[in-house]
Amino acid sequence: MFKTQMEAAKNGFYTEQMLKVAKDEVLSKEYILENVAKGKIVIPANKLHKTLVPRGIGKGLKTKVNVNIGISQDANNIENEMKKAILAEKLEADAIMDLSNYGNTEAFRKELIGTSSLMIGTVPIYDVLSYLGKELSEIVAKDFLDIARKHASEGADFLTIHAGITKSVAKTYLNNPRLMNIVSRGGSLLFAWMNIHNQENPFYEYFDELLEICREYDVTISLGDAMRPGGLYDASDASQISELIVLGELTKRAWEKDVQVMIEGPGHVPLNQVQSNVEMAKRLCHEAPFYVLGPIVTDIAPGYDHITGAIGGALAAWHGADFLCYLTPAEHLRLPTLEDVREGLIATKIAAHAGDIAKGVKSSRTWDDKMSYARSQLDWSEMYKLAIDSEKAESYRDQEGLSDEQTCSMCGKMCAVKNVQKVFSGEEIRIYK
Amino acid sequence: MFKTQMEAAKNGFYTEQMLKVAKDEVLSKEYILENVAKGKIVIPANKLHKTLVPRGIGKGLKTKVNVNIGISQDANNIENEMKKAILAEKLEADAIMDLSNYGNTEAFRKELIGTSSLMIGTVPIYDVLSYLGKELSEIVAKDFLDIARKHASEGADFLTIHAGITKSVAKTYLNNPRLMNIVSRGGSLLFAWMNIHNQENPFYEYFDELLEICREYDVTISLGDAMRPGGLYDASDASQISELIVLGELTKRAWEKDVQVMIEGPGHVPLNQVQSNVEMAKRLCHEAPFYVLGPIVTDIAPGYDHITGAIGGALAAWHGADFLCYLTPAEHLRLPTLEDVREGLIATKIAAHAGDIAKGVKSSRTWDDKMSYARSQLDWSEMYKLAIDSEKAESYRDQEGLSDEQTCSMCGKMCAVKNVQKVFSGEEIRIYK
Repeated sequence: MFKTQMEAAKNGFYTEQMLKVAKDEVLSKEYILENVAKGKIVIPANKLHKTLVPRGIGKGLKTKVNVNIGISQDANNIENEMKKAILAEKLEADAIMDLSNYGNTEAFRKELIGTSSLMIGTVPIYDVLSYLGKELSEIVAKDFLDIARKHASEGADFLTIHAGITKSVAKTYLNNPRLMNIVSRGGSLLFAWMNIHNQENPFYEYFDELLEICREYDVTISLGDAMRPGGLYDASDASQISELIVLGELTKRAWEKDVQVMIEGPGHVPLNQVQSNVEMAKRLCHEAPFYVLGPIVTDIAPGYDHITGAIGGALAAWHGADFLCYLTPAEHLRLPTLEDVREGLIATKIAAHAGDIAKGVKSSRTWDDKMSYARSQLDWSEMYKLAIDSEKAESYRDQEGLSDEQTCSMCGKMCAVKNVQKVFSGEEIRIYK
Repeated sequence: MFKTQMEAAKNGFYTEQMLKVAKDEVLSKEYILENVAKGKIVIPANKLHKTLVPRGIGKGLKTKVNVNIGISQDANNIENEMKKAILAEKLEADAIMDLSNYGNTEAFRKELIGTSSLMIGTVPIYDVLSYLGKELSEIVAKDFLDIARKHASEGADFLTIHAGITKSVAKTYLNNPRLMNIVSRGGSLLFAWMNIHNQENPFYEYFDELLEICREYDVTISLGDAMRPGGLYDASDASQISELIVLGELTKRAWEKDVQVMIEGPGHVPLNQVQSNVEMAKRLCHEAPFYVLGPIVTDIAPGYDHITGAIGGALAAWHGADFLCYLTPAEHLRLPTLEDVREGLIATKIAAHAGDIAKGVKSSRTWDDKMSYARSQLDWSEMYKLAIDSEKAESYRDQEGLSDEQTCSMCGKMCAVKNVQKVFSGEEIRIYK
């Protein structure tokens, strides 16, 4: 049998995952196969993730949404994080990234992969220190590979690998000072490790070995952007773009081994640079699916970064980003609570959908037109049903003491929808008497 | 003395309001005068609004933000609405529109105008029925003018006037059926009145008389968009654009009388039509300042329309919209609560600021760069101070039980900012031991 989705596609073989994606996206199986073969669509589906409902990410598909969770030093409670995972599934996220970096990460990861139908991503470098119980100075290059292998063999569908911050990229960074330096956790740890040990980035140096691991389980590599900007000031700078060039080279190497690849992107980007960021990533990385964090379009709104991220995410999706990582109101301030997860996920789903409408993803607009029709009929139960968050929509509407039960407290008897209906039906409009 | 800001500007006379705007916007007084004379900047400042701090709206200026409040049949509590007005001022909105349409509207309007330093706008047509206590069938054309005069003489800085829905535009609407018909409250009432009485739109028919009223008090006319779309399906359709053409003609007539004008815009617009909507409005209305409601970029998110509106508003501001009307989470569901006002206002201010950065408004980006610098220094008190909502930012951050007091619970000792600092200072990074 074929090792990966990409290998199958290159050989003209339709996997059950491809057929499922074609059906869900209302696209032909030929279209899916052709684009998986070319690397423009990925189907992250580890052979060992038995509970997964496969999804596609990439060209022509609905923009997908990821939720970050995970245990950490200051929030080391597996039960809490599992509640977030369950909420993410209920609210129809597409993927969960487990960013655990402290405590019994293995137990949490296994529970998550053992129960979730969503695509699961992990970041092995976070676990290198935690699982091995070593400090950076004690870690050797092969340790990074060992943890990647461990996550792959436990069923992770995709791994974030910061292979692009090479010695050469680090030099570019030092030559082009930034306001915010490096804000990627994985990137900062690798930069520190490379400095301590005076060695090349281990993921870059042993990239072929990593490809063997990923090929064995059909793990999709999500090439991390260690040099993503941490503020508008640093957006689209030499460090960021020089890393992107390396990611493009690594993408081709992965494809030669039939390993699926996504590219991770910023971060903090002003509104007028979002389009060029997406286009540059797609060009330099040969149209591999693009996975962005936000981007947030202003730095001044801690407490509201689900909104700054939704603005950038919608624009990015419109211009070709395929996968949005959520941001919550807690970004830059704390680990998100359950309520933060809800707010962040819904905001990001809104961005993805608004982007899909603009980029013309098949059947996306139907949803909006159904809502408009329900509104035109003042059909509240249908509006609740169609709402992206039915519970919130229904709980928000005042239900008691309305002057007109068919309308809402915003306009009451001044409801434009109702009054225009009356003009057409010939019924008298009486507002005050 | 000159009757209006525009008349003064055309005659080369600098008003104190122009000087104040120039100072606040860090622009030359010559620039302000030139653009007020051309109608590209308005300074809505009724001569009788004594508590006003004047602001400019238009070309090259920071994008301004409006908050809607007002008493209505289902929420007829003046005290509650005054709390919203005070909150809007505290959170630095630029304008308040009083959409009162029931009860003692006069008392509320007088209290608002008598105390607020923000620009105050009203919608006379809402008050025609309420104040006169008449139904549509009993109202005569001159009643509309009388209420406009009343609001002007009480100190309103700008009036929304739906003069563009003429008999001819209404015919275009009937020839081009919509999914959502007319969703503007004022527009629907005028459409109904015109049908009942078989007369032309009174604001259109008596536009010269209206101009005399506005000229007397220097009231800015905000030409309302009765035909704004109520769903993506209806966006940018024949009805909307045919009304815009009429608004362009009325703009020129107002300018001939030195009356300041803004143009109101949608509404519900897909992401990929926002730019063309702004450009079309600016072209057809001769670069008069453009005031948009949202636009929301998807219809499927009742409960989250502050977010759908922030996405569209940011894009609109970038492409030239000058004034954003807020949307709250309550839009389409209920009259907003105090908390809804806060969420809606902050979201809209974020959109305005993100747009200003993208369109290169002088000094906008400085704020973001200061925040990035504070972040690079892990200077939390400065971050709170700079945050668009300082209270929320500070209250959000977990303050207790942190593994490292300088960082936050998102990353703890894995904080990228801190660890990169250590690489440069030579301090050892110890995460677990």
